[in-house]
Amino acid sequence: MDTSQGSRASRMVVIGGDAAGMSAASQARRLKGPDELEIVAFERGHFTSYSACGIPYWVGGQVTDVDELVARTPEAHRERGIDVRTRTEVVEIDVPGQRVRARDLGSGAESWTPYDHLVIATGARPVRPDLPGIDASGVHGVQTLDDGQALLDTLERAPGRQAVVVGAGYIGVEMAEALINRGYEVTVVNRGAEPMSTLDPDMGRLVHEAMAGMGITMVNDAEVTALRADAGGRVAAVLTRDAEYPADVVVLGIGVRPETSLAAAAGLPLGEHGGLLTDLAMRVRGQENIWAGGDCVEVLDLVAGRERHIALGTHANKHGQIIGTNVGGDYATFPGVVGTAVSKVCDLEIARTGLREKDARRVGLRFVTVTIESTSRAGYYPDSAPMTVKMLAEHRTGRLLGVQIVGREGAGKRVDIAAVALTAGMTVDRMTTLDLGYAPPFSPVWDPVLAAARKASKAVRNPTS
Amino acid sequence: MDTSQGSRASRMVVIGGDAAGMSAASQARRLKGPDELEIVAFERGHFTSYSACGIPYWVGGQVTDVDELVARTPEAHRERGIDVRTRTEVVEIDVPGQRVRARDLGSGAESWTPYDHLVIATGARPVRPDLPGIDASGVHGVQTLDDGQALLDTLERAPGRQAVVVGAGYIGVEMAEALINRGYEVTVVNRGAEPMSTLDPDMGRLVHEAMAGMGITMVNDAEVTALRADAGGRVAAVLTRDAEYPADVVVLGIGVRPETSLAAAAGLPLGEHGGLLTDLAMRVRGQENIWAGGDCVEVLDLVAGRERHIALGTHANKHGQIIGTNVGGDYATFPGVVGTAVSKVCDLEIARTGLREKDARRVGLRFVTVTIESTSRAGYYPDSAPMTVKMLAEHRTGRLLGVQIVGREGAGKRVDIAAVALTAGMTVDRMTTLDLGYAPPFSPVWDPVLAAARKASKAVRNPTS
Repeated sequence: MDTSQGSRASRMVVIGGDAAGMSAASQARRLKGPDELEIVAFERGHFTSYSACGIPYWVGGQVTDVDELVARTPEAHRERGIDVRTRTEVVEIDVPGQRVRARDLGSGAESWTPYDHLVIATGARPVRPDLPGIDASGVHGVQTLDDGQALLDTLERAPGRQAVVVGAGYIGVEMAEALINRGYEVTVVNRGAEPMSTLDPDMGRLVHEAMAGMGITMVNDAEVTALRADAGGRVAAVLTRDAEYPADVVVLGIGVRPETSLAAAAGLPLGEHGGLLTDLAMRVRGQENIWAGGDCVEVLDLVAGRERHIALGTHANKHGQIIGTNVGGDYATFPGVVGTAVSKVCDLEIARTGLREKDARRVGLRFVTVTIESTSRAGYYPDSAPMTVKMLAEHRTGRLLGVQIVGREGAGKRVDIAAVALTAGMTVDRMTTLDLGYAPPFSPVWDPVLAAARKASKAVRNPTS
Repeated sequence: MDTSQGSRASRMVVIGGDAAGMSAASQARRLKGPDELEIVAFERGHFTSYSACGIPYWVGGQVTDVDELVARTPEAHRERGIDVRTRTEVVEIDVPGQRVRARDLGSGAESWTPYDHLVIATGARPVRPDLPGIDASGVHGVQTLDDGQALLDTLERAPGRQAVVVGAGYIGVEMAEALINRGYEVTVVNRGAEPMSTLDPDMGRLVHEAMAGMGITMVNDAEVTALRADAGGRVAAVLTRDAEYPADVVVLGIGVRPETSLAAAAGLPLGEHGGLLTDLAMRVRGQENIWAGGDCVEVLDLVAGRERHIALGTHANKHGQIIGTNVGGDYATFPGVVGTAVSKVCDLEIARTGLREKDARRVGLRFVTVTIESTSRAGYYPDSAPMTVKMLAEHRTGRLLGVQIVGREGAGKRVDIAAVALTAGMTVDRMTTLDLGYAPPFSPVWDPVLAAARKASKAVRNPTS
């Protein structure tokens, strides 16, 4: 690698070729041509710029070709002047030397690449508990397209029809749907009292009931103690303290952790959740020319006023866009999140934004909660579907703190109303007069979110009633 | 009527028994019992608290029983201690005397009723142009349930299959769908260059194309000059300057005007659109104990900073709620609207909020506009439907000014994101990082509204590009 020339272009090195990394690369390339900025991206897998969020739908059969999940291939990036090196893993960041050491996973050869700007987009790794039998074949995480392909290979080879999903967060429930769609009998083993621990338990209970109604066996309050394999090393059952669940395939959906081992080894600052800490421009704190985004960073929760870790493609894309804009010489910032998430399991829609009751307590907020039942359309309009909306508002001030929604078609994306209101710091009283779209096919005359705001506003006025 | 007793309860008199009037009555009753507050409501029709917005779906057959459109009957109101008098028309308001004169439409008898609080909720009346033939039978407005019943009677009696809808606003397009659903050949005769003049013409063009694709004949730039009746006095055709359109039934959907003749005769203040002017608590300006809400008032457009007239059930319900809260002794205000509306014609969803280009120009705003194409779900997810989003942002400041959306399933209610952002005075730059719900069944990784905000933000930065 020739670094001796007098006036070379500056070089941006990207670690990780998915959403954050390649969005950063693409945006920087839009702003600066190859004469000004050389861009090198290292990716240890085979794919770039893919939708990990789409894996459950690929496994479930709604998406038939993995290529549909790839927004831009390595070749397409190369055509746009980005030097993508797949199957190449960065194994060391030398911060004082402004260079990274990368290993070609095929040949094993290693070399150093200097950088002017470094983008760390190493993503997250699924939690894989150190349990007896965890390495049996047929036990799968679903974090990368390579993981998804391995699971599909198992499903095609496995003779049985029994699947166990460990974990009942959004990956767990989405994978439950995927396996139901493939004709499996699905058992979800969940450590918590109710599925979807991103909701309060009273709302999680609604998810539990709906999943049971879909024929999914939900086992709550159950901690997996071991996996049992057959003589051939294939998984045969999932064991908890109290029971044993036969399994031809096991999917682990128990969450992810920021993949920051490289960053930690380089002495870069990590937060309490293990993610990299950045400033508002997505620069790693204390660094001038190291940026980080996507599933490996912590983000500011604007409602709680604290950092949290959220692995979600929509944030990763925004981070990448912002990093690329800044490296490209323009200006952009990421103010933070309000914690919006939406998931679907069969025809059930589950959404949340802001704080749960325990989040609010943890940061010292006093609040009222209300729950209402409403419908997605005017009650008399065909296919009007029921939904439950829970709302938290701050005691005295009436500031909106959080919303959770469980319902059918038309429920999930209503959370966006609350997400924008949270961002704006609105009170529930102000929300009661929001000018939302109304017509019978779209909403009752009081949109469910407004109906919840009305009740919350009343609860704030009369906190004892 | 005994008004001579020494310490009678105070009396609230409501003129108009639909959304605004009866919401006001119901909310006041929740806060004050009959011992404290007597409530008398006059309604000249047969129905109370009904969804006029539901009429197109009743005519179209999706709603089979008119009772489904009635949220609360006169009897149900009476059971809650509200003295509803249907088929009784208020013919005079005596402001200095604090009383109204009402006529029983059955007997013709008139009497005066004194009030302590008066609520004017007289609604709107459909524009019925003074054209030759306008009074032929088979020519219908669709403002009240009685109007809807009359139209249904015509449809059941009329032998033909040709319908003409005059006007291509939201009532016009919804009635076009209703008549298509009943098997009519439908022609929409529209004075404007494109249907849906609440959109800019470039977005109206998309509605035009979609309606043509549904088999609806759209005639634009056409002013109706007369209606032709047959020998029996039944409508036979709609005439424009250039053409004649055979019609077995004609529906007028050319807008409504505030019904404020009573208020005008009483010397109450009207705005430039003919609606009553109120303060933030929904009191008629300059009055202590006269309130007004619903389709007969003008509302403050928070983006334009001017009053406008919008006849929409969701506003009427809010007004009523606020009036009832204030009359009941608590406190509430209506800050204004941002002009959100959503409509459906067959599977096409049409939404708008904020200012159109011509609205922005009219109030002296300089702006950029952008238009993007996106989809309702991740591109790879089944049934992902296309949508077009147009966004206006203020020059220099980047403040959001308006959004228009035309698409299929999942398009319409996305306008709520923009409605809340407008209310909060957000810039399009701030909108680019909004934390909206993302998962493949619900949205692309950049929600269409965010994609539009990104493009608008870029246009604000580079106004010449």
